[in-house]
Amino acid sequence: MGDETRMRSSRLAPLLLAFATPLFGVTPLQEKVRAWRVARENELIAEYRELLAIPNASVDRANIRRNADFIVAMMKRRGIEARLLTIPTPTANPVVFGEVKVPGATRTIMLYAHYDGMPVNPAQWAPGWEPFAPKFATASAERGGKIVDSWKPGDPIDPSWRITGRGAADDKAGVFTLLNAYAALVATGQAPTANLKFFIEGEEEFGSVNLREIIAAHREALRADLWIVLDGPCHPSGKKAVMFGARGDINVNLTVFGPKRPLHSGNYGNWAPNPSQLLVNLLASMKADDGRVLVPGFYDDVIPLTEAERRAVAAIPSVEAELKRELGFARPEVAGRTLFEGFALPSLNINGIQGANVGAQAANVIPTVARAVIDLRLVAGNDAQRQVAKVVAHIRARGWHVLDRDPTDEERAQHAKLIRVETKSAGTNAQRTPMDWPVAQAVVAAVQSTVDYPVVLLPTLGGTLPSRTIEELLDVKLLTVPVVNADNNQHAENENVKVQALWDGLETYTALMTMR
Amino acid sequence: MGDETRMRSSRLAPLLLAFATPLFGVTPLQEKVRAWRVARENELIAEYRELLAIPNASVDRANIRRNADFIVAMMKRRGIEARLLTIPTPTANPVVFGEVKVPGATRTIMLYAHYDGMPVNPAQWAPGWEPFAPKFATASAERGGKIVDSWKPGDPIDPSWRITGRGAADDKAGVFTLLNAYAALVATGQAPTANLKFFIEGEEEFGSVNLREIIAAHREALRADLWIVLDGPCHPSGKKAVMFGARGDINVNLTVFGPKRPLHSGNYGNWAPNPSQLLVNLLASMKADDGRVLVPGFYDDVIPLTEAERRAVAAIPSVEAELKRELGFARPEVAGRTLFEGFALPSLNINGIQGANVGAQAANVIPTVARAVIDLRLVAGNDAQRQVAKVVAHIRARGWHVLDRDPTDEERAQHAKLIRVETKSAGTNAQRTPMDWPVAQAVVAAVQSTVDYPVVLLPTLGGTLPSRTIEELLDVKLLTVPVVNADNNQHAENENVKVQALWDGLETYTALMTMR
Repeated sequence: MGDETRMRSSRLAPLLLAFATPLFGVTPLQEKVRAWRVARENELIAEYRELLAIPNASVDRANIRRNADFIVAMMKRRGIEARLLTIPTPTANPVVFGEVKVPGATRTIMLYAHYDGMPVNPAQWAPGWEPFAPKFATASAERGGKIVDSWKPGDPIDPSWRITGRGAADDKAGVFTLLNAYAALVATGQAPTANLKFFIEGEEEFGSVNLREIIAAHREALRADLWIVLDGPCHPSGKKAVMFGARGDINVNLTVFGPKRPLHSGNYGNWAPNPSQLLVNLLASMKADDGRVLVPGFYDDVIPLTEAERRAVAAIPSVEAELKRELGFARPEVAGRTLFEGFALPSLNINGIQGANVGAQAANVIPTVARAVIDLRLVAGNDAQRQVAKVVAHIRARGWHVLDRDPTDEERAQHAKLIRVETKSAGTNAQRTPMDWPVAQAVVAAVQSTVDYPVVLLPTLGGTLPSRTIEELLDVKLLTVPVVNADNNQHAENENVKVQALWDGLETYTALMTMR
Repeated sequence: MGDETRMRSSRLAPLLLAFATPLFGVTPLQEKVRAWRVARENELIAEYRELLAIPNASVDRANIRRNADFIVAMMKRRGIEARLLTIPTPTANPVVFGEVKVPGATRTIMLYAHYDGMPVNPAQWAPGWEPFAPKFATASAERGGKIVDSWKPGDPIDPSWRITGRGAADDKAGVFTLLNAYAALVATGQAPTANLKFFIEGEEEFGSVNLREIIAAHREALRADLWIVLDGPCHPSGKKAVMFGARGDINVNLTVFGPKRPLHSGNYGNWAPNPSQLLVNLLASMKADDGRVLVPGFYDDVIPLTEAERRAVAAIPSVEAELKRELGFARPEVAGRTLFEGFALPSLNINGIQGANVGAQAANVIPTVARAVIDLRLVAGNDAQRQVAKVVAHIRARGWHVLDRDPTDEERAQHAKLIRVETKSAGTNAQRTPMDWPVAQAVVAAVQSTVDYPVVLLPTLGGTLPSRTIEELLDVKLLTVPVVNADNNQHAENENVKVQALWDGLETYTALMTMR
């Protein structure tokens, strides 16, 4: 089948799918929202692509501001009262804040998303996939998805396509969903049942480093009865989910020092110490091949799941066999433990490691430094600083001299094993909302109204949200209701969101905005 | 002292140094060569900078050819009969071959250098230092050397300056020295005492992969009584040296496979296996913190040094204390072993390692692959393929499934630990010329005639040359006489050659071309 033929048939797909959707179980609200969306898919996507084209690395202040201004304009176009929440700290990224007052409403719901994104290395993206030039792709890059070059504005959009780009899923999809769900309600003449507030954060991927200060400065504006967080992926099966908590997180940067200048690996090999070898020996001492973290006391503070949480984990549809097949590996890190059971424990992950070069740039050298970044996820009971202290104690116990800066000549002369250990933020602790909280039941019911299968209930997301900080400072509970597909490559190259996930999200969030 | 003042005084330095050189011990030949050089330093350096500006990564065929053509033209300008030695293999880089017949000469000396260079990662070079835009610097980058921006053609050249750029030391310095030493002899009316041949290789940094075929195709042209190799650094003290051998070498590329798509480190962390962790655990199993290689049988085949070689190693001036201070480390890899004692043993060095990213591009991910390149240096008795087989056996013994390509879905489903192991070339074995060979004594005497201190005699270079292949195929012995400073960063970022080292090299090689 030629490209042309394939393209033509995929252009027909959305129409066929619209007719194929079973009407059984679809609420009147869903029907209206769906019709509204079907009539303006092109327009919705065009605006979304404009948003995705603005680079959004948390540290890229100029573009961060362009994103914030763009979202303010999006809110205003929809009749949402919008402004930036700022603080005097010049490096703090603004929160985009929006508000809709509903006459007679007694409850206020805060809707959370973030517009900043993880750093990108464009060289690692698949050919044609670019971080900030959003396009359609026929599938994920790893499943052979191809960029749909032939699509032009006005053409139908296949709901099985992906939209590519940093932030497409994590978490500009939150901006798309929240603002368009509200627009759909207004356009179809339906009022929210609660006052709505929108909190679109600008440094979630940078450890929410200024969130405490921002909350302190805008406490009144941020009052709400419930925060709903739109972040993270749906269940890997594609099923909608409600998450009652999130793991905490802190990153630790390690730099091991070798010779002051890079050396020829022959003329100095087996004499000058190689920092890459010293670093791999250290990292190997932290985690066994069977997935057990070997840092003393690593699992000590963990508060076990409650009975209700354990039951919920047990009820999660099994995904492991299918995921192992899709992801192409034979054995999970810890044999016999499910994906979701693992979320109840802290983790230690090597985010990145580099010493000199590999591939085409590799050369026969002993480098001057070797670097790694490790990621410590935290659960209830853990404290970010305490967890880092355990890792540092482990490093020291293995004979390392630990610094928070580069070594002096004196230190180099004195210590055989020199390492710089740094954390870029204070870290985020874990948060959990009790599963039996009545408001949570209403949230689950709203999401449940949009689907025929049981909504998946997770005691905690595996990832991290600034939930604990918000809970603590504003004395409010949080729930997470995700929208995007699980195979979205968030944080990595070839990030993407499934078009259908965006459409489904509109139905989920209009239901939440009108929940009883 | 302002920049302007410092610059002016350093411009005077060459003149002062020329007067300060003691005349005692300088041969009449040296005097003439030195006067010739002093009169045309600008001209010599101008041509050298043109050569260094041509990129020379072994795989960059278009530029490799430009280098070869440039060197042919250099030879022709000096009256050397020059041509390219090629073979039908389209990817083979040409050897630049030159020949000078000397009436009445009974001996033929082949002079070896190479014009190709190691790959570069320009991002790793110091500000202002570029791989292929040669400049002067006041010192090595690691000692705070600054680019001399104010220099313009015609200005004096401070002999303590460095010339920056890939190949400046390794090994276009060989091209500079060989061709200009010959030019100096001709210009000062002195005849070489032997027929001279020049063999300027184009893929030494790529494992000399086509050398066997090139030698086979041009055996007659390559006949000589002795090969003198101009490659590798002088003794770290700056003293001139003669080396009687070279270690062999083979690189092994390792790729460990994780999930097929990159994963969020929270949403999949402690479930999906992280290839970086698996790789560091494997590499840590290969070498202890105390420098011992743990691969079974790694040291088994080693032929010990002869009595004469042991005496020579013991006589090498001690450099370890000074080198440790300069390089800024407290303990060599194996405590108590000297740099040169280590050359008598095979090595295992991590040339490069990378899993995802560190620094500004780091993200919270589990990557799809982690890669490393290890470098195995070989000594007399070792065989490249046998040494690799020991490493592969070690990997297999630790439960890995070893492939020479990416895994299939079936292999992914079946094996928990999947690794791709590749060697890009057949490797080079070590070579040693007996220290008591009479011709070697003449070479040592020639070098000795140019200096007042005892020339350093090394049984083997720590690095690698294609000496063993040449020895075997052409039944000829080889000696190495280096020219460049040891702190030249060869193979790495900020490569440089000391100007004085180039000047000294002219005196060394005119002495060799006229040796008795």
